[in-house]
Amino acid sequence: MPVIDSSVQQFQTCINACNKCSQACEECLTSCLKEPDVQARIHCINILRDCADICSMASQWMSRGSIYAKQFCQLCATICEECAAECAKFKDSHCQECANICRQCAEECRKMAAM
Amino acid sequence: MPVIDSSVQQFQTCINACNKCSQACEECLTSCLKEPDVQARIHCINILRDCADICSMASQWMSRGSIYAKQFCQLCATICEECAAECAKFKDSHCQECANICRQCAEECRKMAAM
Amino acid sequence: MPVIDSSVQQFQTCINACNKCSQACEECLTSCLKEPDVQARIHCINILRDCADICSMASQWMSRGSIYAKQFCQLCATICEECAAECAKFKDSHCQECANICRQCAEECRKMAAM
Amino acid sequence: MPVIDSSVQQFQTCINACNKCSQACEECLTSCLKEPDVQARIHCINILRDCADICSMASQWMSRGSIYAKQFCQLCATICEECAAECAKFKDSHCQECANICRQCAEECRKMAAM
Repeated sequence: MPVIDSSVQQFQTCINACNKCSQACEECLTSCLKEPDVQARIHCINILRDCADICSMASQWMSRGSIYAKQFCQLCATICEECAAECAKFKDSHCQECANICRQCAEECRKMAAM
Repeated sequence: MPVIDSSVQQFQTCINACNKCSQACEECLTSCLKEPDVQARIHCINILRDCADICSMASQWMSRGSIYAKQFCQLCATICEECAAECAKFKDSHCQECANICRQCAEECRKMAAM
Repeated sequence: MPVIDSSVQQFQTCINACNKCSQACEECLTSCLKEPDVQARIHCINILRDCADICSMASQWMSRGSIYAKQFCQLCATICEECAAECAKFKDSHCQECANICRQCAEECRKMAAM
Repeated sequence: MPVIDSSVQQFQTCINACNKCSQACEECLTSCLKEPDVQARIHCINILRDCADICSMASQWMSRGSIYAKQFCQLCATICEECAAECAKFKDSHCQECANICRQCAEECRKMAAM
């Protein structure tokens, strides 16, 4: 059944993106705390806390087939997008990489929410 | 400063409601699994999983003063309301009590989201 | 049945302590990030991340009556104790208060683990 | 630096195993709830709840480089091992697959804890 198959595939793609994004945010947060300009990164750090958490829970909710997975991914997309924009302001590699991963995750979450 | 004070008070009221609701949902889920008509409760159990999780995370996000706390509480309110409606269908005391606690939590989360 | 009653009471006391501690750690983390000496607090901030998370999950696991609640609370007690020691190094009120709350939570978690 | 490289590699292997295990447990729990013999699976379902949660948090803690990652993975290994043993009792494919994934995750978590 192609419909179910493509649906399962889309879930897996989005779960993987959320797992990757949660990891990137946790790593980036830890790295930001070590930067000499940590005081310029407070807003970024606070968004990273939220983004790591919501991506992790989005992954769990998609895995369980929650009826709220789409709504949850919609909010997740918003936060990932803003986290990407915030990380993109910093030139170090962990922020640049995290920004890219957040942007990809936002895109996958938007696809999920629109299914 | 009365504005800040009432804001802090509202946060605490909603945090307490979310903690109480997360606990009620975890307890009710465990109790539903033991009921002889567990097969009639699958939908209820699945909503309880989500409701327990989102209330717990909402509590954490309000505590940290997340800029997404209101949006998160709005989704939390939706899920609490539907969890209350689902639990209310079952006559045992854990479901009836959980329904009441979910309804109160939904109300507090709506107040938070509207602040 | 007094045994069960006192057991339930002990669970509720520990759940409340964990909820309170998770909140204190989230608040303290947010406040530490705003302090002028944030760079001196990196280790404290990293422990606060873990302590907030484990207290929140400990509360959920006790609520559901997990067979691993005691083992989980034992690890939670260790982390709360070290978080208290770290917060106690800073003189501001949020760290001092968080240290006290972590110490109380550690004590309740040790009681739980020993039940 | 080979030491650091192999350490990072080991973290990533264990993070991937935990993400996969958390997903398998959430999926298996949802599937168990739909089985006609759900009443025979209550213990399994309750362990799956814990195993999904702890694997998800273990993944986050390794990602952030928590000083408690090893201790956390040690407890995670215990729970994964018991979850595997419980799932292995049921003959359906989701339980058999989940048992294998839990066993692999337990092994990776033990390696992490022993590093």
